Amino acid sequence: MSKKWVYIQDLGSYVGQEITLKGWVYNTRSSGSKIKFLLLRDGTGYIQCVLFQGETLQEYLDQFSLLTQESSVIVTGIVREEKRALGGFELGLTSFEIVHKTEDYPITPKEHGTGFLMDQRHLWIRSKRQHAVLRVRAEVIRLCREFFDKNGFLCVDAPILTPSACEGTTTLFEVGYFGEKAYLTQSGQLYSEATARAFGKVYCFGPTFRAEKSKTRKHLTEFWMLEPEVSFATLDENMELAENLVEYVIQKIMETREPELKSLERNCDVLKKYRAPFERLHYNDAAKMLEKGSPDFKYGSDFGAPQETFLTSKYDKPFFVHRFPKAIKAFYMKQDPEDATLSLSCDLLAPEGYGEVIGGGCREESIDVLLKEIEKHKLDQKDFEWYLDLRRYGSAPSAGFGLGIERAVAWICGIEHVRETIPFPRMLERLRP
Amino acid sequence: MSKKWVYIQDLGSYVGQEITLKGWVYNTRSSGSKIKFLLLRDGTGYIQCVLFQGETLQEYLDQFSLLTQESSVIVTGIVREEKRALGGFELGLTSFEIVHKTEDYPITPKEHGTGFLMDQRHLWIRSKRQHAVLRVRAEVIRLCREFFDKNGFLCVDAPILTPSACEGTTTLFEVGYFGEKAYLTQSGQLYSEATARAFGKVYCFGPTFRAEKSKTRKHLTEFWMLEPEVSFATLDENMELAENLVEYVIQKIMETREPELKSLERNCDVLKKYRAPFERLHYNDAAKMLEKGSPDFKYGSDFGAPQETFLTSKYDKPFFVHRFPKAIKAFYMKQDPEDATLSLSCDLLAPEGYGEVIGGGCREESIDVLLKEIEKHKLDQKDFEWYLDLRRYGSAPSAGFGLGIERAVAWICGIEHVRETIPFPRMLERLRP
Repeated sequence: MSKKWVYIQDLGSYVGQEITLKGWVYNTRSSGSKIKFLLLRDGTGYIQCVLFQGETLQEYLDQFSLLTQESSVIVTGIVREEKRALGGFELGLTSFEIVHKTEDYPITPKEHGTGFLMDQRHLWIRSKRQHAVLRVRAEVIRLCREFFDKNGFLCVDAPILTPSACEGTTTLFEVGYFGEKAYLTQSGQLYSEATARAFGKVYCFGPTFRAEKSKTRKHLTEFWMLEPEVSFATLDENMELAENLVEYVIQKIMETREPELKSLERNCDVLKKYRAPFERLHYNDAAKMLEKGSPDFKYGSDFGAPQETFLTSKYDKPFFVHRFPKAIKAFYMKQDPEDATLSLSCDLLAPEGYGEVIGGGCREESIDVLLKEIEKHKLDQKDFEWYLDLRRYGSAPSAGFGLGIERAVAWICGIEHVRETIPFPRMLERLRP
Repeated sequence: MSKKWVYIQDLGSYVGQEITLKGWVYNTRSSGSKIKFLLLRDGTGYIQCVLFQGETLQEYLDQFSLLTQESSVIVTGIVREEKRALGGFELGLTSFEIVHKTEDYPITPKEHGTGFLMDQRHLWIRSKRQHAVLRVRAEVIRLCREFFDKNGFLCVDAPILTPSACEGTTTLFEVGYFGEKAYLTQSGQLYSEATARAFGKVYCFGPTFRAEKSKTRKHLTEFWMLEPEVSFATLDENMELAENLVEYVIQKIMETREPELKSLERNCDVLKKYRAPFERLHYNDAAKMLEKGSPDFKYGSDFGAPQETFLTSKYDKPFFVHRFPKAIKAFYMKQDPEDATLSLSCDLLAPEGYGEVIGGGCREESIDVLLKEIEKHKLDQKDFEWYLDLRRYGSAPSAGFGLGIERAVAWICGIEHVRETIPFPRMLERLRP
């Protein structure tokens, strides 16, 4: 009795037709013995299926009690418009078949602790909240790629296995590579500088790794990073690119994922106000604000969570802090020609307490300066000979940034912890499932 | 004297206007003392710039000899349509500025050995051939994503750091994970089965790793894999999805990358014929063909390069081989209900000698069968408890496949070795640059 198999997300094209859906029982309820409701999910949406005495055989009414939570089922019925129903349609069930009856599904409508849910991540992702977050994530990724593809950037992947550190040596994961030591990439940036010399403007997008021992709501050991790099770009052009990207993603996400954001109780009116240009705050000016307002801050140091929280409380839109002290930045960051103690760097801080979602800047183009910095940072010059070649042959200004996808998704969704923004989070003490 | 900075790929909008380009010297030539030609690349294209006595100052004519290969330059001039020129435009130079003069660029127009070029990969990617291949790669990736996004699939990333093997234990890269042992993923498939139960139809796309000790033209240790997974799909539906994907990518790539394919001397007429449906050859029938034609083959074994070469010589389109012996497949592959020695698996073999580009099949949905297989394959059940949960709670048929991006790009480009299809290849004895 199976009819054409369709998905809930496509039901609008099948009103009045008898079709088949394949999915899982989300929940059930009865209204007396003559009418029964099955809320079905097929991964693309939810639909209320109605079993009505007279429309279906008695055997299906009798078997209804077998439809336990998360049992897999194949249902056939007629699609009806129903304004009051979730999604705008309901299915008048004519028959169903239980593929697999689930007993004692571990995640019930009652409250569970996060540790328990994280252990059940392979099942937890079936719940409505995780659905909403991961559907936003997928769309953020799609929009980021679309933004760069439309703007003439080429996607050029950086390698994951690398012979040396890029962002300091304290957070490296080591891999045995046929008797050699390799490291998981911390950032594709050094490689993106090479590809930007080849292709002008590029981006890479892939997983990056930091062996962070800190357990905070912002840290994963494995996270996805989007990293554009533009040859000949200035710091201002870099900030423009970053704000245009952020505006594009946030404004566009509302076109397709507003229902998910609302289900997460995200205030979309606040998001709609995040339009470029974003303010640009010099590090020195930020430092003055902090010295007045945040007693723990010392000029010259990086921002921690208290400083970010303080600064973001002063703005109702994302904003840049630029020209951080050279001493706290990576070896390749270009010195500010107007103040040798500062660098041509920029971070984008998200409001609502989210803090840094983008970090970037201009790269040093002089080989002599770079050689000194490599020595100062106690790095092995041999490891960077290929990178130095980019200054030997056709050196040019270059600027770019990294957008951490999970932090951006947490901010856009308005959720507390990045662990929910990636399908299978990896953290200190969390390598499973 | 700098004007609006534009890219070569956008020159069509600036005919008759004076603009600025930023890029690198590809080569130069002179025609007497009054006219000089600079072939400039900016990463998005190439353009001939003409320096003509009378149109520019004498100082630029005098400095022309400083324009060595791969020097970085900023040039200003007037865009002219010129049908005979590469790209259809030329630039009447009014001025230029050398940003960095390159001396002794290592890659000259003369022939270089592959080992040398691989060591110079960070520079080699600036050459025309590598440009063409990597631009095809970027577009293949974009089209794959577009195909799935358009067809209602959700992109759900699988983790890279995993606690256990997925495709056998002999090719694992081990990572130290805060005192625990972790492994780099060999495939996202086990995780995609979990996400397909959550979202119906999904794909993941990311780097995967195999510690392959073999040095062949088809093997990388780090390669990107696209892996869709569909809950409730049959083997036939899986093959349909695969052939539709391949047709989509190959037909669409010609719309934007035909110039690159032609520059690689790829016969595009051959590619244009690769339209679905593709033939489906039962393993038993393939075995009969091989037993007649390829003396080294024994029924029950997997195909090696000689068998793939023999079979692909019989077809002028991609084709599937399905129902490989169960014994040579991974533990999760579903048994063929019509022959217990076979599996519901399928490979797509590319013609022209390229062989396997897709491998996939149906996953075992019975927990009892899976438990026996885990034991038979000497795997540790404890590592797979979460995967077994997918059979405990709402088990359902599931099918999917993996498309190796580098093999697909090599085939589409018609090039010999996968090492040129990824920006920074990783192979046995090759972890640099």
